[in-house]
Amino acid sequence: MSGGCVHIDGEFVELDDAKISIFDTGFLHSDVVYDVTTSWQGYIFKLDEHLERFAASCAGFRLTNPYSNDETARLLAECVRRAGLDDASFIHMHVTRGLYPVGSRDPRLCENQFACYVVPYVWLWGEEKSKAGVNLHLASTERISSKAVDARYKNFHWADLIQSQYEAYEAGRDDSVLCGPDGNLAEGPGYNIWVVKDGVCATPDANCLLGMSRKSAIELCEMEGIPCELRVIHPDELRNADEAFATSSAGGILPVTAIDDRPLGNGAPGILTSRLVNAYWRKREEGWCGTRIDHLLAA
Amino acid sequence: MSGGCVHIDGEFVELDDAKISIFDTGFLHSDVVYDVTTSWQGYIFKLDEHLERFAASCAGFRLTNPYSNDETARLLAECVRRAGLDDASFIHMHVTRGLYPVGSRDPRLCENQFACYVVPYVWLWGEEKSKAGVNLHLASTERISSKAVDARYKNFHWADLIQSQYEAYEAGRDDSVLCGPDGNLAEGPGYNIWVVKDGVCATPDANCLLGMSRKSAIELCEMEGIPCELRVIHPDELRNADEAFATSSAGGILPVTAIDDRPLGNGAPGILTSRLVNAYWRKREEGWCGTRIDHLLAA
Repeated sequence: MSGGCVHIDGEFVELDDAKISIFDTGFLHSDVVYDVTTSWQGYIFKLDEHLERFAASCAGFRLTNPYSNDETARLLAECVRRAGLDDASFIHMHVTRGLYPVGSRDPRLCENQFACYVVPYVWLWGEEKSKAGVNLHLASTERISSKAVDARYKNFHWADLIQSQYEAYEAGRDDSVLCGPDGNLAEGPGYNIWVVKDGVCATPDANCLLGMSRKSAIELCEMEGIPCELRVIHPDELRNADEAFATSSAGGILPVTAIDDRPLGNGAPGILTSRLVNAYWRKREEGWCGTRIDHLLAA
Repeated sequence: MSGGCVHIDGEFVELDDAKISIFDTGFLHSDVVYDVTTSWQGYIFKLDEHLERFAASCAGFRLTNPYSNDETARLLAECVRRAGLDDASFIHMHVTRGLYPVGSRDPRLCENQFACYVVPYVWLWGEEKSKAGVNLHLASTERISSKAVDARYKNFHWADLIQSQYEAYEAGRDDSVLCGPDGNLAEGPGYNIWVVKDGVCATPDANCLLGMSRKSAIELCEMEGIPCELRVIHPDELRNADEAFATSSAGGILPVTAIDDRPLGNGAPGILTSRLVNAYWRKREEGWCGTRIDHLLAA
């Protein structure tokens, strides 16, 4: 298949043929959760952990994946195979609420629907900028509160994130980072934010996705002997950081080199950031936390 | 056409054939705004005002409806005609951001997409309950803050609303009503909330959709000489109200007869509520603020 492969409505189809009813409440009410992992050199990264988090997202939204974790894993692997992208792919899965029966608007009566797709590996800010570092805009748009939609359940409620990106683009910056309702750092569009000060890495502990790449960074800090804190972070700490980076499945660990046009440090990716980036890719190439795609297909 | 008619991708299709790419960010990021009006006895209700609000929602999300208001009006009327539902229909229109060009995630590069559909008239709580009154659950889930996603721009960010409905159903109640981040009443799933005390009607003035049926209720209060306030409303005022009602395109003015299982007044639709309900339908039957569908089609 060209450009990727989708499994939807029980069938494998081309990207162009992957469609959902406009009456599926996954669209009509954004009543949907998702997860994303990646393949790299024949391995799917942290597959079991992603499937666990996906199940937690489903449960948090009171959705049910019609497939078991084993079945889901095989569907993902089969999409990778059909797309011919074992080497480097972006692997997405979601469950939507489905359609209301005619005349009803009771979400309990909907038949939940699974779909997944595999496309070529995505770099959050394109490959070049994702390696060289970006200039982030501290957005005035507030991130949706977890008291309304729990950010731990990975979801499509992105209007705030998209509007914050417009703010960033209009200011000539690369991307945005948002604060939660308490005025402290939350997250950005598709990534967790990290600050580095005096040799210590820190990332917000609330109103953000518990990112799997965020978790990888925590593990890499431990391996590298770098102190790491999960805590409330005021945006001034980001403005005044020695270094900053983002974590995302779309690139792993990604340097942030300026905030609101003001360079961090000397304006190049930071020393600790670069150590973590290098450690991340060295480990990924070793198959770190990887499930072999050929084993999944043979199972 | 049976059961309704959809206009999507420039074509009129059956409901079952109305599909959207799973890569449209209208789905993937719920980056979409919509509007809803109704037809009744050959008239579309407040068509120009709905088209104006729809345009404001588009602008608020930095989306562009590819059709002019006149073109949009004709598409809606044509859907009504093809569905054979001039007498009583529910008329929905939306604009999605569209697909990112391959390799990009810049929302400015997406081609915005319009769709609309017409289905038989919808009563918010089914016809019987929508007339007899419902038992509302004051939800613990918070309504998304307008500081994150501005509720004035009618959107599909409904995960909080859906979860609040689960709360309601699990408590054996008919539907839910939510408070905003300030702890005051916001809105419910698809409706604005009203309280009546000592002969005065009041509805929240913030963190809620500026509903067209809410506006109709304001106008009817004026016609009927009933004092009407738009202001901050504490949930205790709802609990202790003499009467309460909801406003929604899906039923107009709908009595609320209990909050958290506690009847309001004598537990029947209130006197002022019933006056407004009767006035609403009397006016609708007279073609109040109506645009004749046959005129739209002939234009």
